[in-house]
Amino acid sequence: MGLLVVGSLALDSVATPFDKVEEALGGSATFISLASSYFTGPVNLVGTVGEDFPKRYIDLLAEHKIDLAGLQVVPGKTFRWSGRYHYDLNVRDTLLTELNVFEKFNPVIPDKFRTSKFVCLGNIDPVLQMKVLDQMDDPRFVVCDTMNYWIEGRKPELIKLLKRISVLIINDSEARLLAGEPNIVKAAKMIREMGPQILIIKKGEHGALLFMENNIFSAPAYPMEMIFDPTGAGDTFAGGFIGYLHKTNDLSPENMNRAVVYGSAMASFCVEQFSTGGLEKLTYPKIQERFRAFLKLSRFDEKD
Amino acid sequence: MGLLVVGSLALDSVATPFDKVEEALGGSATFISLASSYFTGPVNLVGTVGEDFPKRYIDLLAEHKIDLAGLQVVPGKTFRWSGRYHYDLNVRDTLLTELNVFEKFNPVIPDKFRTSKFVCLGNIDPVLQMKVLDQMDDPRFVVCDTMNYWIEGRKPELIKLLKRISVLIINDSEARLLAGEPNIVKAAKMIREMGPQILIIKKGEHGALLFMENNIFSAPAYPMEMIFDPTGAGDTFAGGFIGYLHKTNDLSPENMNRAVVYGSAMASFCVEQFSTGGLEKLTYPKIQERFRAFLKLSRFDEKD
Repeated sequence: MGLLVVGSLALDSVATPFDKVEEALGGSATFISLASSYFTGPVNLVGTVGEDFPKRYIDLLAEHKIDLAGLQVVPGKTFRWSGRYHYDLNVRDTLLTELNVFEKFNPVIPDKFRTSKFVCLGNIDPVLQMKVLDQMDDPRFVVCDTMNYWIEGRKPELIKLLKRISVLIINDSEARLLAGEPNIVKAAKMIREMGPQILIIKKGEHGALLFMENNIFSAPAYPMEMIFDPTGAGDTFAGGFIGYLHKTNDLSPENMNRAVVYGSAMASFCVEQFSTGGLEKLTYPKIQERFRAFLKLSRFDEKD
Repeated sequence: MGLLVVGSLALDSVATPFDKVEEALGGSATFISLASSYFTGPVNLVGTVGEDFPKRYIDLLAEHKIDLAGLQVVPGKTFRWSGRYHYDLNVRDTLLTELNVFEKFNPVIPDKFRTSKFVCLGNIDPVLQMKVLDQMDDPRFVVCDTMNYWIEGRKPELIKLLKRISVLIINDSEARLLAGEPNIVKAAKMIREMGPQILIIKKGEHGALLFMENNIFSAPAYPMEMIFDPTGAGDTFAGGFIGYLHKTNDLSPENMNRAVVYGSAMASFCVEQFSTGGLEKLTYPKIQERFRAFLKLSRFDEKD
């Protein structure tokens, strides 16, 4: 049982026009599992780090009741990523990607994790994402993230994977690339025909669109005066989304809408601080308060 | 009484990747007055055209009960604009701007229009927009549109004007340019300090943000599989917005939210056809149906 999270763990060095941070905790599995830990448990993490991975980061994950039985600590250096954001924070340059131990990552799912019904596949090689699914007993609700790198370099493998997932979460430019279609509504239709019944298209500061059954749900973004560090916002969104669904165990369209807003709320906390800072000391009442801010932000009604 | 609309009337030649149209009815005053005519009346139009302006376009405006007492028909040619949209429709090239009679436009407000309390200043030179306000008896609710061309070329005049309007409607890049600030929430604060108590930032396919009192309202955009022609969508938004407010005569925040959605609904009809085609044969029930589609699109609630 529990929620299985597979992805990267990284040491991120990030510079924004306002500040910078060196070798901070990062990686898709990190953000997903931290975000989902506020909603549900157990969160079962599978990933890999090198022997240089700081103990305080392990402790942080453990404090959030994340089960680390699937964390492979192997000889070598941890995956490192470094990026610099431009003044408007929508553009970033990747300065360095050092895969290190992540290059040979082979996800092995511990026996006790194989019964998880909810699976969140962080943004890694679709070949590895498939290997994860192959080890699961009965993965009923699979959420998958990917990126332009895999859409361009691993398309056949990704297409195969899409037939085995429930929800694909990608951003708008990735959706256009995957479908080869500039209109986002048409692109969504084409992607859903490739497999996933549910598609979420993230639009950064413009919110997110959920395509499910014959409906579209448009979630607003939380208007922020100060975005400190956008790194991990998409992973955090996915973590809040699947965490809320695992907690409520309700896959109705109404609850899926709520889950998208909880995902957006978690992402808004994430970008308020560097690295995982915005996700370390949250409380459920704070999260609900942010959820209600989203309600207020988008509420209107028909005149009586 | 009534709603005063001042702006351009034009003959637009527009090409999209799908089709094209020659010398079709266009101009900010055209789209604003047509859109608002579905909500309220009388709509009092002030603008100028040349003697070549087709009678069928005059007839179309008159059929929508738009009062043309302020339409100056003068010797010479009507303002012509020509543009070509790219495949993704978010980018357009202006191929031709022939001001013609519009170059010497001097808005003269007929006496019977001067008592209008609601005024919509379409996107024209801020000097002319100011001339309009100077002729009004008691303009209580003034909605104003502008563009990067005036922000860059007529900043001092625009800044003066901003102190005399109630609502500024601009798009996100214009807001950033006017405030000199990339963060949209900060930019909104700075612009409201220049005068307008209410600010609407249009984000095209990403919806619109309304800043009023201490609140932000985020309106979704209607997801469309086919955008035929984006020309006039912003003007149409303004027309639907002020038309609904004039009809209801309710300037509360709740009603302002509704007005933004009615504006968005009208804009969604506008882009479904070339030129004014999408605004010519609407009915109020159709508009309400589209309003309800916006409700459905953005509705979520807190779990009991």
